[in-house]
Amino acid sequence: MTTAGATRDKPTTSSGRGPVRGPSVAELLASYRDGSRSPSAHVATVLETVERRGDDGTWISVDAAAARRRAAELEATPGASDLPLYGVPFAVKDSIDVAGFATTLACPAYAYEPGGTAPAVQRLLDAGAICLGKTNLDQFATGLNGTRTPYTVPRSVFGDDLISGGSSSGSALAVALGEVPFAVATDTAGSGRVPPALNGVLGFKPSRGLLSTVGLVPACRSLDCLSLVAADVDDLRLVLGLMAGVDERDPWSRPRRRRADDPARLRVGLPDEAELSFFGDTAMADAHHAARTAVARAFSTLTPPLAPFLAAGELLYAGPWVAERLVEFGDFLDEHRADVLPVVEQIISGGARFSATDVFRAQYRLAELKAEVARLFETMDVLVLPSVGTTFTVPEVLADPVATNTVLGHYTHFGNLLDLCAVAVPAGTTEDGRPVSLMVLAPALDDDLVLGVAARLLDPLPA
Amino acid sequence: MTTAGATRDKPTTSSGRGPVRGPSVAELLASYRDGSRSPSAHVATVLETVERRGDDGTWISVDAAAARRRAAELEATPGASDLPLYGVPFAVKDSIDVAGFATTLACPAYAYEPGGTAPAVQRLLDAGAICLGKTNLDQFATGLNGTRTPYTVPRSVFGDDLISGGSSSGSALAVALGEVPFAVATDTAGSGRVPPALNGVLGFKPSRGLLSTVGLVPACRSLDCLSLVAADVDDLRLVLGLMAGVDERDPWSRPRRRRADDPARLRVGLPDEAELSFFGDTAMADAHHAARTAVARAFSTLTPPLAPFLAAGELLYAGPWVAERLVEFGDFLDEHRADVLPVVEQIISGGARFSATDVFRAQYRLAELKAEVARLFETMDVLVLPSVGTTFTVPEVLADPVATNTVLGHYTHFGNLLDLCAVAVPAGTTEDGRPVSLMVLAPALDDDLVLGVAARLLDPLPA
Repeated sequence: MTTAGATRDKPTTSSGRGPVRGPSVAELLASYRDGSRSPSAHVATVLETVERRGDDGTWISVDAAAARRRAAELEATPGASDLPLYGVPFAVKDSIDVAGFATTLACPAYAYEPGGTAPAVQRLLDAGAICLGKTNLDQFATGLNGTRTPYTVPRSVFGDDLISGGSSSGSALAVALGEVPFAVATDTAGSGRVPPALNGVLGFKPSRGLLSTVGLVPACRSLDCLSLVAADVDDLRLVLGLMAGVDERDPWSRPRRRRADDPARLRVGLPDEAELSFFGDTAMADAHHAARTAVARAFSTLTPPLAPFLAAGELLYAGPWVAERLVEFGDFLDEHRADVLPVVEQIISGGARFSATDVFRAQYRLAELKAEVARLFETMDVLVLPSVGTTFTVPEVLADPVATNTVLGHYTHFGNLLDLCAVAVPAGTTEDGRPVSLMVLAPALDDDLVLGVAARLLDPLPA
Repeated sequence: MTTAGATRDKPTTSSGRGPVRGPSVAELLASYRDGSRSPSAHVATVLETVERRGDDGTWISVDAAAARRRAAELEATPGASDLPLYGVPFAVKDSIDVAGFATTLACPAYAYEPGGTAPAVQRLLDAGAICLGKTNLDQFATGLNGTRTPYTVPRSVFGDDLISGGSSSGSALAVALGEVPFAVATDTAGSGRVPPALNGVLGFKPSRGLLSTVGLVPACRSLDCLSLVAADVDDLRLVLGLMAGVDERDPWSRPRRRRADDPARLRVGLPDEAELSFFGDTAMADAHHAARTAVARAFSTLTPPLAPFLAAGELLYAGPWVAERLVEFGDFLDEHRADVLPVVEQIISGGARFSATDVFRAQYRLAELKAEVARLFETMDVLVLPSVGTTFTVPEVLADPVATNTVLGHYTHFGNLLDLCAVAVPAGTTEDGRPVSLMVLAPALDDDLVLGVAARLLDPLPA
């Protein structure tokens, strides 16, 4: 197994401007069937790419030998080629257990060898997929920017020292670099949507409870969910279908609800642009305006207020939920404070300032906002927003790590608090070549709706 | 308006052994129709009874003049006699606003004149009902025993200085004394079930959110619900139907779900008797055993584990939810500590010892227990338990106010935490003449099921 060294903040530059399109799952399976590729040959190609790029901050660990062995085993197993993910390589965020890989949370002092594989990931392995390795993240999944890692700080595929976004930085990059068709990530406050948005790929945060969180080291246990990064909506649909399932060991587990609405008939909420913030980034505001215009052509729209969503986001950002991180990492922090990045240590320790009454007060306010948002969704099927209001470079984030992070979560913080599902959808670039992303949100269990809208946005019908 | 004086702990003895059966709503309406009674005449009769009993701890305030005036107005209003509660007197717990009555929470220093009537109560007034007054309670609805009041401490209608139960002591008594066919109460940890159980009447705790809690001074805002006391299941059904309705001002509000299951086909859970506690009260254990036997004759039964329910109850009893009371009453306590009963002050102040991490830890545990209980309810429609494991006298409670209170909540503490609905159903008496009550519980929104079982238990079909 190769494990990246602890080369903190070593700058690397992305090789290109924008994502590399690798083969989708369907394309891989078709090529395996027609003999133009084999799992072993494809895995070897991907491993060469990874090797050639060197330590770019995408991976914390890759087990090339195990991946080659697994590809050969699949090829030798009668019937395996009928499996829905036969020989498809994928990546897993390094806060989720996969047997054979240490789980590090981007904190070497915290690392442990897991006793098994997270059941949601096991379903992918059972479907014939090949886990190449574990991907980089903001330490303890605490951050939306990608710079909070003792390993190499990754950069966006859009170059110019742009941050990758976090916390699922490596999962987004493994897909955006064309190395894997999909990657497993997580999302608590936007970790599964911001990095895909900053790397021109899809970031899908299913409804909480659809994918078992057993084998995930929690950030905020009451809000966490597994998420998916991919370049193709059909891949998201396929992988969701394979991973989803009620797990009695996950108390928030719930069954999926299928919907087959005609996306063309959905009522899409586009808030008044005066309610949107781009933090002075006029190029992003212009690009979003253009993307909205395309949305309005494809769907019938209405104008819901954005305030209750943002108010819920502020509750997460300023409120007591950070104490959930202290529940999880408090004991470790007490004994290993020096082993934790200062900004992460500072944020998590901040959970201690909240009392029980603070939690109940915030939960009352959240209940009010949830009720208000539920009423908005009575006349609206999905809400479309920017995924991020602006982008940052690595030096900009390092110079002001907390304020920039808050800006990155402006549109994502409220998603899990309000029990929504969401997908970040690539929407071109700004005039100066930075990534633009639309986020499609819907109430929990309307996952099929947000994926349907994403598909239509990526593949619009002729006007 | 008559207001009871602050005659703390003045002993009064109940006049009888068991509840007095007054006319039901249907009986009242029939008598108004056939002319054998009129609202004015009936109100006068009830007021005479109240007057004759004197200050027995049932009422905090009664407005006899207003009730007489309202009866006369109804009689003079064309069409009013068609209203579903035309001229029906009722009582309201004094933690719920009714215009014209101070809301005291059994704490004179806290009392205020409300700006209006709680909307759920207003629906009763709009249906033609007559609010006679406000009923006694354990101060700030903090207690299950009925002794925690600066007004007269009420006694059970079963006499022998038995406690009334609390916190909805006066609401239960007003029904058990035959003064009103129904009363509005509340239930957070059992306040709407324990007093009816100790007075031989029905105590129905609907699913949280069916009845608007606007105009209720909260105890634990995330758990509170309005509840109903009555002597007749049909009265509960009628009043529930009139009071229920989504209220946008109540963030926990949700619509009712109607069910028309055949009660005879329900699967009734009766836990192993070895899991039941009667706290050394063998007469109660024997009486419960006999009542269970009747249940088992009327229904097909199964034997679910009781442990996850009781574990949730312990979370409430020992955990951070008491901090919700501090959210509500903390500022008042700071300024009026001497005006609050010492035991109530001590309990509410205890909320300050819990941190935010305590709340999240307890909520994680609760999520696990909720999931476990949800799985139990996949094979069981309703659960039947004792409502209380034993009874206490007023001196017994005053001698050990916290431990006795915990015993009283043994079977009720978990109800709202686990999001269940429940009804306490009279089931005769112990050999030594104390009240026995069965509690029927079901998942939220299965209110029709628990009422259906209650009806069948009260009116069993011939074997």
